[in-house]
Amino acid sequence: MEKTISVIGGDQRIVSLVELLASDDYTVFTYGLEKSDIKENEKIVKCKTLKETLEKSDKVIGPIPISTEKDMIKMPFSEEKITIEDLANSLDNHTFIVGNVNESIRNVLTSKNVEIIDILDIEKFTVLNIIPTVEGAIQVAMQETKRTLHGSNVLILGFGRIGKLLSKSLVGLGVNVSCEARKDTDLAWIKAYGYKPIHLKDLKNEIAKFDIIFNTIPTEILDAELLAKVKNDALIIELASKPGGINREEAKKRKINVVEALALPGKVAPLTVAEYIRDIIYELI
Amino acid sequence: MEKTISVIGGDQRIVSLVELLASDDYTVFTYGLEKSDIKENEKIVKCKTLKETLEKSDKVIGPIPISTEKDMIKMPFSEEKITIEDLANSLDNHTFIVGNVNESIRNVLTSKNVEIIDILDIEKFTVLNIIPTVEGAIQVAMQETKRTLHGSNVLILGFGRIGKLLSKSLVGLGVNVSCEARKDTDLAWIKAYGYKPIHLKDLKNEIAKFDIIFNTIPTEILDAELLAKVKNDALIIELASKPGGINREEAKKRKINVVEALALPGKVAPLTVAEYIRDIIYELI
Amino acid sequence: MEKTISVIGGDQRIVSLVELLASDDYTVFTYGLEKSDIKENEKIVKCKTLKETLEKSDKVIGPIPISTEKDMIKMPFSEEKITIEDLANSLDNHTFIVGNVNESIRNVLTSKNVEIIDILDIEKFTVLNIIPTVEGAIQVAMQETKRTLHGSNVLILGFGRIGKLLSKSLVGLGVNVSCEARKDTDLAWIKAYGYKPIHLKDLKNEIAKFDIIFNTIPTEILDAELLAKVKNDALIIELASKPGGINREEAKKRKINVVEALALPGKVAPLTVAEYIRDIIYELI
Amino acid sequence: MEKTISVIGGDQRIVSLVELLASDDYTVFTYGLEKSDIKENEKIVKCKTLKETLEKSDKVIGPIPISTEKDMIKMPFSEEKITIEDLANSLDNHTFIVGNVNESIRNVLTSKNVEIIDILDIEKFTVLNIIPTVEGAIQVAMQETKRTLHGSNVLILGFGRIGKLLSKSLVGLGVNVSCEARKDTDLAWIKAYGYKPIHLKDLKNEIAKFDIIFNTIPTEILDAELLAKVKNDALIIELASKPGGINREEAKKRKINVVEALALPGKVAPLTVAEYIRDIIYELI
Repeated sequence: MEKTISVIGGDQRIVSLVELLASDDYTVFTYGLEKSDIKENEKIVKCKTLKETLEKSDKVIGPIPISTEKDMIKMPFSEEKITIEDLANSLDNHTFIVGNVNESIRNVLTSKNVEIIDILDIEKFTVLNIIPTVEGAIQVAMQETKRTLHGSNVLILGFGRIGKLLSKSLVGLGVNVSCEARKDTDLAWIKAYGYKPIHLKDLKNEIAKFDIIFNTIPTEILDAELLAKVKNDALIIELASKPGGINREEAKKRKINVVEALALPGKVAPLTVAEYIRDIIYELI
Repeated sequence: MEKTISVIGGDQRIVSLVELLASDDYTVFTYGLEKSDIKENEKIVKCKTLKETLEKSDKVIGPIPISTEKDMIKMPFSEEKITIEDLANSLDNHTFIVGNVNESIRNVLTSKNVEIIDILDIEKFTVLNIIPTVEGAIQVAMQETKRTLHGSNVLILGFGRIGKLLSKSLVGLGVNVSCEARKDTDLAWIKAYGYKPIHLKDLKNEIAKFDIIFNTIPTEILDAELLAKVKNDALIIELASKPGGINREEAKKRKINVVEALALPGKVAPLTVAEYIRDIIYELI
Repeated sequence: MEKTISVIGGDQRIVSLVELLASDDYTVFTYGLEKSDIKENEKIVKCKTLKETLEKSDKVIGPIPISTEKDMIKMPFSEEKITIEDLANSLDNHTFIVGNVNESIRNVLTSKNVEIIDILDIEKFTVLNIIPTVEGAIQVAMQETKRTLHGSNVLILGFGRIGKLLSKSLVGLGVNVSCEARKDTDLAWIKAYGYKPIHLKDLKNEIAKFDIIFNTIPTEILDAELLAKVKNDALIIELASKPGGINREEAKKRKINVVEALALPGKVAPLTVAEYIRDIIYELI
Repeated sequence: MEKTISVIGGDQRIVSLVELLASDDYTVFTYGLEKSDIKENEKIVKCKTLKETLEKSDKVIGPIPISTEKDMIKMPFSEEKITIEDLANSLDNHTFIVGNVNESIRNVLTSKNVEIIDILDIEKFTVLNIIPTVEGAIQVAMQETKRTLHGSNVLILGFGRIGKLLSKSLVGLGVNVSCEARKDTDLAWIKAYGYKPIHLKDLKNEIAKFDIIFNTIPTEILDAELLAKVKNDALIIELASKPGGINREEAKKRKINVVEALALPGKVAPLTVAEYIRDIIYELI
C-alpha cells in the first residue's frame, strides 16, 4: 500500500515535517510552501493547485495554528492566499490534521465527514512544546545580557508548566534560581526541588536583587510598584501570552529591557517540533 | 506574654519538636515522653499527669498520627496508656495540633470548643514530607545493594509526587532512571525532565534490565507475569502504602528481595520533619 | 586618599570594567575608548592625549590582549593609533595591568621600573574564563541548530578544562553527553561524572550518531576518515584555537556545518569578564 | 582453550569477583574463602590446599590489599593462616593479580618470573573507586543524622578527587555545598562548578554554619581553634586516611560526632568494585 499525505501551507515546522515524512517513505504532496527551501524529489511533489493537492491523499496536514490572520490560511512560505472557507469547502472525507480549528469551521467540516485532528488540543503536544520553549527562553536570556547566566540571580514568576522545566534547566547552568508562587503547595514543591521559594506577598522585598526575571503569568504581576524596585539593568523576559504579566508602559518609562519571547518552539527548534508532530500523527492514524 | 505549649505522647519527631520549641523560648510541658532522651530543663517540664499537662497551656500537640493502635493514643516513649476518648474528654477550649483525627473524635472535640489543627490534612506538609521520603528511599537502596546506585538501571513505577522527586534525586547520583506511567502527558513530562519514559503496556518488554525498582503505586502493578521477568538479584523497594503494588507471595516464591519502606520521614529525618511541623504551627497559631 | 586609575584602549570588557571601577568610586581616566558607549560623568573622564591620561594615575589598564595586530595597541573603540612602543615609552613607574605582554616589551618596561600585571598569565583568570566560554558554546549550538539540545546526542572531543565544564552544563539541559579522551584516567572520570566515555580509538565506530560535536583539541582529530562518518546534518563547533581539530577542507567538501567559536567570553559576557578582571586587580593592588 | 583462574583469600570484593568470573565462563579455583557465601558449582571449585590451587591456573588473584596485618595474607573468610612469604614461595611463573605488594616481595616474585599486576597501582582503578567512596560517604551522612541532607549546609574540606565527585553528588540531593581549598585555581573551579568556594584562611569565619563537614585532607586542618567554632550538633565525616584532618581529642572533648569512614568501596559496593577489577583484569591478560 502506498503511503501518501498532502500538506497545505504552514511554517518552518511543517517544512521540517514534510522532510521527515518523506524520509519515512511517505509521498508528500505540498501546496503553499513554494518559497520554502524544500526541494522536490521522488517523495516530495509540489502541486500547482489546492484541488490537485487534496485529491492526492485522504490525509491532509494544515497549518498549526490554521490561521493567524482573519479568515486566511497561514501560508508564510507562499504568495498564494486561501481562505479557511475555501479550504474547508474543498475537504471531503479527509482526515485533517491542523491546529486551532474554531467551532464554526469544525461544524462545516464535520458535516462533510472530515475527521479533524487538532494538534493543539493534544495535551501531550502542549507538554512536549515546553522543552523548546524553555530552551528558547534560555537562548534569549543569553543573547540579551552581557553577563553569564552562571552566577546570576534569576526569578521565575509562576510555577506552572514552563516554570517547572525552566527552573530545572537554569540550575544546571549554575544560576541561582528563585521561583514565585502563591499557593503553599507550590512553594513547598519549589523548596523540594531545591530552588528558593518566594511568596507573591514577599515579592516586593526580594525583587531588587534579580538580574533576570522570566514571567510565565498571563495577567499583570509586575505592576508599577514592583517595577519601581527592579534593577535598572535587569532583563525581563515575557513568556506569557497577551496581555502578559508586565506593565509594559511603566517598564518603558523606567527603561527596563523587556523582551517578548513568544511562539519559541517554532522559532528555535522547528525540526524537533516537527518530530513531535510526526510521532503524534503516527500514533493517531 | 509567656509562651507555653503542652505535648502529649508522639514519636521521635515530636521529641525533636519539643526541643525546637524550647529553643524558641517556649516553655513546653510534656506527658508520655518519659522514656525519650529529652532532658528536663528550665524550658522543658515533664508533667506527672495528663490533667496537669493540659492545664498548663491552651495549645496542645498530640501524636501524628494520633493513634496507630485501636483507640489508644500513640505514645511509643511511654509506659502509660491513654485512650483517645480519655484525651478527648480532657480537652476543653484548647487548640489541638495532631494528625489523623477521625470523624467521631472531631465531633466530640468540636462540641467542646476545641480547635483542631490536623497536620496531615495540610497539603503543604504532605509535599514537604516527600523530601525525607525520597532521601530515605535512597538510603534504603544504598544499604540493601552490593552495587553503587551510580551506573545502575533504576525503574520508578508511578510518576506522582514521590516519583517526581525521587527521579530527580537519583539522576544526580549518576543513576540511569526510567519512569513508568500510563498517561500520555505524564510520559511527556518524564521525557521533558530527561528520564526514560516507559508506558505501562511496554513494561513487560523492559523490566528485565532493572537493578532496582521503586514502587509508588498503591495497587498491584508488579504481578506474577511481570515478576517472572524481573532479574533474580534485583531489589524492589515498596514505597506505597498497603496493599502496595507488588504481588508479595510471587516475589517471595522467586526469592526477589522486596523491602518495604514506609513512614520514612519519621525514621530517617525526625528533626527535619519536626522543623516542618514547627513552621506550620507558627504560621497557624 | 583619592582612588584613580587610567585606561588605554581595550574592547567591550574594558568598557564594562571602566563602569565597574567608577561605581566603586574610582575616578577613571580613559583614552582610546571614545567610540564606545561610555558616558562621561564625575567619575569617568575622557582624556585628549595619551600623555595626559598616563599622568593622572600610577595605575594603568591596557588592552587584554595588548595587541591583535602587529605592533599596534588594540583599540577597537578608537580612531587613534598607538604603537606598543609608544605606549611603552610613555610608561614610567606605573603599575601596568594588561594581557599578553611579550618578552621585548617586558624588558623595556621593567627597565623603566614599570610593574607589569599580565592578566592572561593568572591561572585563576584562565579557569574563570571557562564559564563564559562554555555558556557561549551552548548559545552558539542553540543558534545554529533547528533542534533542541534536549534529547540531542552530543560529543565533546577532549576532556580538559572546557570539556569538564561543558559536559556538566549540557547534561543539565537534557543532552545525552559523550566525551572522547585517550587517557584511561580521563575515561574513568568521564564515567564517574556520568557521561558516556569514548576512547579515541573507538571514535570511528561511534561518531555517526552525534548531532553536535564540540571540539576542544588544538590538533587535528576530526580527519577525513572520521568526517566521512559524521552525519550530514551534524553541527561541529570548533572551540580550540588555530589550527584546531577539524580538517576544514574535508568538512567543507562534505558540506558539514562547522562553526568557529573563539574568544567567546568577551563576546557573550563582557560584563562578567570585567568583574573577574576587577576582582583580580583588587586582589593584586 | 579452557579459561581458568585461581583465587587466594580476599574480602567480599573478591567473593563477588569469583562469581563474576564464573559467570563469564572461567573455572575458578578458590582457597581461603571457605567461610564466605560462595557456593561450589561446576565453575567454582573450593580447593583444599594452597599448592593445589596454584597448580590449577597460571593466573592467580590475591587479596587487595595483600595484607592488613603484619606478614599475613588477608583472608577474612578463612580460618587458615598463610604468610606472604609462604604464598610468594609457592608462586612460580604465575601472573599474580593483587594489591599493595611491597618492594621486598616484589623482588622475590620477580626473581621467580612471576608477573605482578598491582591493582592499586592502576590509576584508573583509583579513580573508579571514588564512585563507591562518594556513595558510601553519602550513605554514612544519611545514617548518622536526624536531618535530611536536602537543605543542609555541607562543607567539604579539600577539592581533590573525592571532593570533586562528592560535591557534585550532594548538589543533586538539594544540599547547599561549600568547598574549602587553598589554591586560587581550585577556588575558581569550585565557583565554576557552582559551589561556594571558601579559602582556607576564611574557614574560621564560615565554619559555624555547617551541619555536616566531610574531610578529605590527610593532615590536620580541623584543629582546636576551628573545632571550637563548629556547631555542637554538627556531624564530621573523616574520609582521609590516618592521621586524617581532625584533632580527634579536641572533637571528643567537645562531644562532636566524628565518624571515620574508610575503605568504603569494599563495604558499600563490593560487587561494583569487583566489576571494576574484572574489567581491568580482562584488559590486562
